[in-house]
Amino acid sequence: MPIVRVAVTLKPSLLDSAGRTVAGSLDKLGFHEVSSARIGKLIHLEVDRFDPERIKEMCEKLLANPVIEDYSFEVVE
Amino acid sequence: MPIVRVAVTLKPSLLDSAGRTVAGSLDKLGFHEVSSARIGKLIHLEVDRFDPERIKEMCEKLLANPVIEDYSFEVVE
Repeated sequence: MPIVRVAVTLKPSLLDSAGRTVAGSLDKLGFHEVSSARIGKLIHLEVDRFDPERIKEMCEKLLANPVIEDYSFEVVE
Repeated sequence: MPIVRVAVTLKPSLLDSAGRTVAGSLDKLGFHEVSSARIGKLIHLEVDRFDPERIKEMCEKLLANPVIEDYSFEVVE
Protein backbone atom coordinates (compact mmCIF):
# COMPACT_ATOMS: atom_id res chain seq x y z
CA MET A 1 0.00 0.00 0.00
CA PRO A 2 1.34 3.47 -0.84
CA ILE A 3 2.80 5.66 1.89
CA VAL A 4 2.12 9.37 1.55
CA ARG A 5 4.40 11.79 3.33
CA VAL A 6 2.66 15.02 4.33
CA ALA A 7 4.81 17.96 5.47
CA VAL A 8 3.03 20.68 7.45
CA THR A 9 4.97 23.89 8.12
CA LEU A 10 4.13 27.21 9.68
CA LYS A 11 3.71 29.97 7.08
CA PRO A 12 7.02 31.79 6.56
CA SER A 13 5.58 35.14 7.70
CA LEU A 14 4.72 33.79 11.16
CA LEU A 15 7.07 33.71 14.15
CA ASP A 16 8.03 30.14 15.07
CA SER A 17 8.78 30.32 18.79
CA ALA A 18 9.62 26.61 19.11
CA GLY A 19 12.02 26.95 16.19
CA ARG A 20 13.62 29.99 17.77
CA THR A 21 14.14 28.03 20.98
CA VAL A 22 15.77 25.17 19.07
CA ALA A 23 18.07 27.60 17.22
CA GLY A 24 19.03 29.17 20.57
CA SER A 25 19.75 25.77 22.13
CA LEU A 26 21.89 24.72 19.15
CA ASP A 27 23.86 27.94 19.48
CA LYS A 28 24.43 27.29 23.21
CA LEU A 29 25.67 23.78 22.33
CA GLY A 30 28.29 25.30 20.02
CA PHE A 31 26.53 24.95 16.67
CA HIS A 32 27.06 28.59 15.74
CA GLU A 33 26.58 27.87 12.03
CA VAL A 34 22.79 27.64 12.55
CA SER A 35 21.15 31.00 11.98
CA SER A 36 17.53 29.90 12.27
CA ALA A 37 15.33 26.86 12.73
CA ARG A 38 11.68 26.25 11.91
CA ILE A 39 9.70 23.28 13.11
CA GLY A 40 6.91 21.49 11.34
CA LYS A 41 5.05 18.21 11.33
CA LEU A 42 5.71 15.19 9.21
CA ILE A 43 2.82 12.77 8.78
CA HIS A 44 3.17 9.40 7.08
CA LEU A 45 -0.15 8.01 5.92
CA GLU A 46 -0.62 4.47 4.70
CA VAL A 47 -3.45 4.55 2.18
CA ASP A 48 -5.23 1.97 0.00
CA ARG A 49 -4.57 4.07 -3.09
CA PHE A 50 -3.07 7.51 -3.69
CA ASP A 51 -5.57 10.18 -4.68
CA PRO A 52 -4.07 13.69 -4.43
CA GLU A 53 -7.52 15.31 -4.16
CA ARG A 54 -8.35 13.17 -1.11
CA ILE A 55 -4.99 13.90 0.55
CA LYS A 56 -5.55 17.62 -0.06
CA GLU A 57 -8.96 17.32 1.60
CA MET A 58 -7.41 15.54 4.63
CA CYS A 59 -4.88 18.37 4.94
CA GLU A 60 -7.53 21.08 4.73
CA LYS A 61 -9.87 19.35 7.18
CA LEU A 62 -7.60 17.84 9.79
CA LEU A 63 -3.86 17.62 9.22
CA ALA A 64 -3.07 21.30 8.76
CA ASN A 65 -4.54 24.61 9.77
CA PRO A 66 -4.65 26.40 6.39
CA VAL A 67 -4.86 29.82 8.08
CA ILE A 68 -1.39 29.57 9.58
CA GLU A 69 0.19 26.50 7.96
CA ASP A 70 1.33 25.39 4.52
CA TYR A 71 1.37 21.75 3.49
CA SER A 72 2.82 19.59 0.76
CA PHE A 73 2.72 15.87 0.13
CA GLU A 74 4.32 13.18 -1.97
CA VAL A 75 4.17 9.42 -2.33
CA VAL A 76 7.30 7.91 -0.81
CA GLU A 77 6.72 4.18 -1.27
CA MET B 1 22.69 30.05 2.87
CA PRO B 2 21.79 26.36 2.63
CA ILE B 3 18.60 25.07 4.22
CA VAL B 4 18.82 21.58 5.70
CA ARG B 5 15.63 19.62 6.21
CA VAL B 6 15.81 17.18 9.11
CA ALA B 7 13.07 14.53 9.46
CA VAL B 8 12.69 12.91 12.88
CA THR B 9 10.39 9.91 13.13
CA LEU B 10 9.53 7.44 15.84
CA LYS B 11 11.19 4.06 15.34
CA PRO B 12 8.84 1.73 13.41
CA SER B 13 8.69 -0.80 16.26
CA LEU B 14 7.21 1.76 18.67
CA LEU B 15 3.51 2.53 19.08
CA ASP B 16 2.68 6.03 17.86
CA SER B 17 -0.37 7.03 19.89
CA ALA B 18 -0.69 10.48 18.27
CA GLY B 19 -0.58 8.83 14.86
CA ARG B 20 -3.20 6.33 15.89
CA THR B 21 -5.46 9.18 17.02
CA VAL B 22 -5.00 10.97 13.69
CA ALA B 23 -5.79 7.76 11.75
CA GLY B 24 -8.93 7.30 13.88
CA SER B 25 -10.03 10.90 13.28
CA LEU B 26 -9.49 10.58 9.53
CA ASP B 27 -11.60 7.43 9.54
CA LYS B 28 -14.41 9.23 11.41
CA LEU B 29 -14.27 12.03 8.82
CA GLY B 30 -14.86 9.47 6.06
CA PHE B 31 -11.30 8.90 4.89
CA HIS B 32 -11.56 5.13 5.15
CA GLU B 33 -8.64 4.59 2.75
CA VAL B 34 -6.18 5.50 5.52
CA SER B 35 -5.04 2.40 7.37
CA SER B 36 -2.42 4.01 9.59
CA ALA B 37 -0.69 7.29 10.35
CA ARG B 38 2.61 8.08 12.00
CA ILE B 39 3.68 11.53 13.10
CA GLY B 40 7.15 12.96 13.18
CA LYS B 41 8.96 16.27 13.29
CA LEU B 42 10.30 18.27 10.41
CA ILE B 43 13.03 20.78 11.22
CA HIS B 44 14.37 23.29 8.72
CA LEU B 45 17.77 24.63 9.68
CA GLU B 46 19.40 27.57 7.98
CA VAL B 47 23.15 27.03 8.19
CA ASP B 48 26.24 28.93 7.03
CA ARG B 49 27.54 25.83 5.26
CA PHE B 50 26.36 22.23 5.03
CA ASP B 51 28.49 19.73 6.93
CA PRO B 52 26.75 16.35 7.31
CA GLU B 53 28.88 15.41 10.32
CA ARG B 54 27.76 18.54 12.16
CA ILE B 55 24.09 17.98 11.30
CA LYS B 56 24.40 14.39 12.53
CA GLU B 57 25.84 15.69 15.79
CA MET B 58 22.94 18.15 16.18
CA CYS B 59 20.47 15.30 15.66
CA GLU B 60 22.22 13.05 18.21
CA LYS B 61 22.54 15.80 20.81
CA LEU B 62 19.32 17.79 20.53
CA LEU B 63 17.00 17.31 17.58
CA ALA B 64 16.22 13.61 18.00
CA ASN B 65 16.19 11.08 20.79
CA PRO B 66 18.25 8.27 19.21
CA VAL B 67 16.83 5.71 21.65
CA ILE B 68 13.32 5.99 20.26
CA GLU B 69 13.65 8.06 17.09
CA ASP B 70 15.25 7.77 13.66
CA TYR B 71 16.40 10.80 11.70
CA SER B 72 17.43 11.69 8.19
CA PHE B 73 18.43 14.95 6.57
CA GLU B 74 19.01 16.53 3.19
CA VAL B 75 19.87 19.94 1.78
CA VAL B 76 16.77 21.42 0.20
CA GLU B 77 18.01 24.83 -1.00
